[in-house]
Amino acid sequence: MGFFKIIKKDSRTLARTGILKTERGTVKTPVFMPVGTKATVKAATVEQLYDLGCRIILGNLYHLYLQPGIEVIEKAGGLHKFMNWDRSILTDSGGFQVFSLSRIRKVLEEGVEFRSIIDGSSHLFTPENVVVMQYRLGSDIAMVLDECIPFTDDYKYTKEAAERTLRWAGLSIKARKKIRSGRMRLFGIVQGGFIKDIRKFSALAVSEMDFDGIAIGGLSVGEDRAQTMEILEYTIDFIDKARPAYFMGLGDPIGIIDSVSLGVDMFDCVMPTRISRTGSAFTSSGKINIKNKKYTMDFNPLDGECDCYTCKNYSRSYIKHLYKTKEILSAILLTVHNLYFIVKLLEKAGDAIEKNNFFDFRKEFKSKYNDKNEKS
Amino acid sequence: MGFFKIIKKDSRTLARTGILKTERGTVKTPVFMPVGTKATVKAATVEQLYDLGCRIILGNLYHLYLQPGIEVIEKAGGLHKFMNWDRSILTDSGGFQVFSLSRIRKVLEEGVEFRSIIDGSSHLFTPENVVVMQYRLGSDIAMVLDECIPFTDDYKYTKEAAERTLRWAGLSIKARKKIRSGRMRLFGIVQGGFIKDIRKFSALAVSEMDFDGIAIGGLSVGEDRAQTMEILEYTIDFIDKARPAYFMGLGDPIGIIDSVSLGVDMFDCVMPTRISRTGSAFTSSGKINIKNKKYTMDFNPLDGECDCYTCKNYSRSYIKHLYKTKEILSAILLTVHNLYFIVKLLEKAGDAIEKNNFFDFRKEFKSKYNDKNEKS
Repeated sequence: MGFFKIIKKDSRTLARTGILKTERGTVKTPVFMPVGTKATVKAATVEQLYDLGCRIILGNLYHLYLQPGIEVIEKAGGLHKFMNWDRSILTDSGGFQVFSLSRIRKVLEEGVEFRSIIDGSSHLFTPENVVVMQYRLGSDIAMVLDECIPFTDDYKYTKEAAERTLRWAGLSIKARKKIRSGRMRLFGIVQGGFIKDIRKFSALAVSEMDFDGIAIGGLSVGEDRAQTMEILEYTIDFIDKARPAYFMGLGDPIGIIDSVSLGVDMFDCVMPTRISRTGSAFTSSGKINIKNKKYTMDFNPLDGECDCYTCKNYSRSYIKHLYKTKEILSAILLTVHNLYFIVKLLEKAGDAIEKNNFFDFRKEFKSKYNDKNEKS
Repeated sequence: MGFFKIIKKDSRTLARTGILKTERGTVKTPVFMPVGTKATVKAATVEQLYDLGCRIILGNLYHLYLQPGIEVIEKAGGLHKFMNWDRSILTDSGGFQVFSLSRIRKVLEEGVEFRSIIDGSSHLFTPENVVVMQYRLGSDIAMVLDECIPFTDDYKYTKEAAERTLRWAGLSIKARKKIRSGRMRLFGIVQGGFIKDIRKFSALAVSEMDFDGIAIGGLSVGEDRAQTMEILEYTIDFIDKARPAYFMGLGDPIGIIDSVSLGVDMFDCVMPTRISRTGSAFTSSGKINIKNKKYTMDFNPLDGECDCYTCKNYSRSYIKHLYKTKEILSAILLTVHNLYFIVKLLEKAGDAIEKNNFFDFRKEFKSKYNDKNEKS
């Protein structure tokens, strides 16, 4: 097979299952990819990730470029060896981080100039050098450099950014050919903000290019959920269906299940790991926060329906105690649980699609899951 | 067998091997017991502790009493179940913490009154109630309440404190009988500061009481190493040799090996876990600090002679990167390594004693290990 193969299409929605094949193995889609920004998925060991069935994680060029530097990782034998992860890694180009983290930056036609958040030094990311650097990291799936804009209704700004992103996309493809990065896959990114005709134009143009997958960027940037889904639904319609569709930066369970319905295959988000460090846990009835007084004497697992390591061995009472006493183990146990929850949610969605009952699965999940069940 | 059995005595030193038998299993001595103050060994999972061969850990009554409270742990089914640890637990009475952590405290004949470090509330620990509370926690080995004094040469103060500790020891034994805490073992604590005749008096008196083991307290409180060893050597001579001897609060490798030579069977200290959170690692040639610039491109393991999970899978370069970027995984990997180092050091010492070459083992270890090899 090639890189991506669709296995089964749902009959009542646009959901589908598929298989991604990288040099490091196969990944069933739909899939949630835990974020390992700085060469570690925060608070988890690789064995804990393997145990919960994770087959692909993210790395981030922006952070790794600044610290420890590409040269260190290259000399270590690549990112996989450096961090002791032998399954697939998708690396983000750092476009999003340049725009969200570096307060001082300048968009040029040839790329984006920015100051390091660590020491203030000046750097230039270009469509070409981010491809080369991801290749040097040993990435299985690289992302193009894109111009990420904040939530806005400014037509001219949105259009210029989307057009520049497309010109950069073309340069990225040339850069890949030039270095003969044979095994590394490269995904394009559709931009266009919240303006439909720019989204359409961007989706069609990216679909015409020689990318292995197509990402939808620029969503989940502060808009409300209805807008996200409206733009997603509109945009995905113009994307080549034969390639994997990747929604960048979406982590909430309801949003993910709705996106699967629209044909999205891949997801990533820092949210499941981030909330683990602030005491929150997904459960089948919605998110809870373990700080809540009512958990002091609650000897039930975080989620009674969950089979994760944490839920099989620890109580809410214990995790609350760990969190209150600022013990590192609270972040570890919550991370294992929250990643299990979200990775398995996508696996279950895939199973439902294959049994052709995804429509009912989605309905049942959404009727039970409600983040407003608990104010934290 | 009873609780403690001596297996082998070294011919050239006072070192010996033995077996402790608790309700939860057997523990070979000499042994290092990782400290799990607040119902977790900081930054480690129980599986990581099992994997490195740890068979006994410490809990601390003082901290657990304040948070989450004895009642919570009792209702959870005891400390073992609460924290999912099924091997042995020794609990400290909290005497040391009352004196070192609570700035406001008052020693009374009936016990010690102190203010909580959490909310300032007032509490009383008595010789009787600390035994009862350790029993309620489900401790395998409980410690008596002792009066811990700072490093001082004040004879009168030292003597009064040691005498009160002895009176409390008598009350502890009565308390244990009263609650019929059959399976729980109870250790007495020898005090007496740095004044030999008080140490002697205390050691002889504790040895006459019905304790399952005898701890040496009040050392490693700021004195230099020569003084520690001088008082230890002097004191241990007056302790009943048939029972396990426990040096409270010693964690440095050289000190431990020298103490084993004097007949100490059990050790605990927060040091190996604490230094793991500040970037330090034991190695066979001495402690190193991973922050050091020279490790940026060092792709060797922390210790080339170490077989721990961390050394088998990760480089100094990677751990340095994790530490610099404040990733939780740095504490996890260093904790696994440092605990492995110290737990195995005691295992190796035991093996050497059984092969009757402990004298050479000690010599070789001390000739290689030097904490001054690296300034950090």
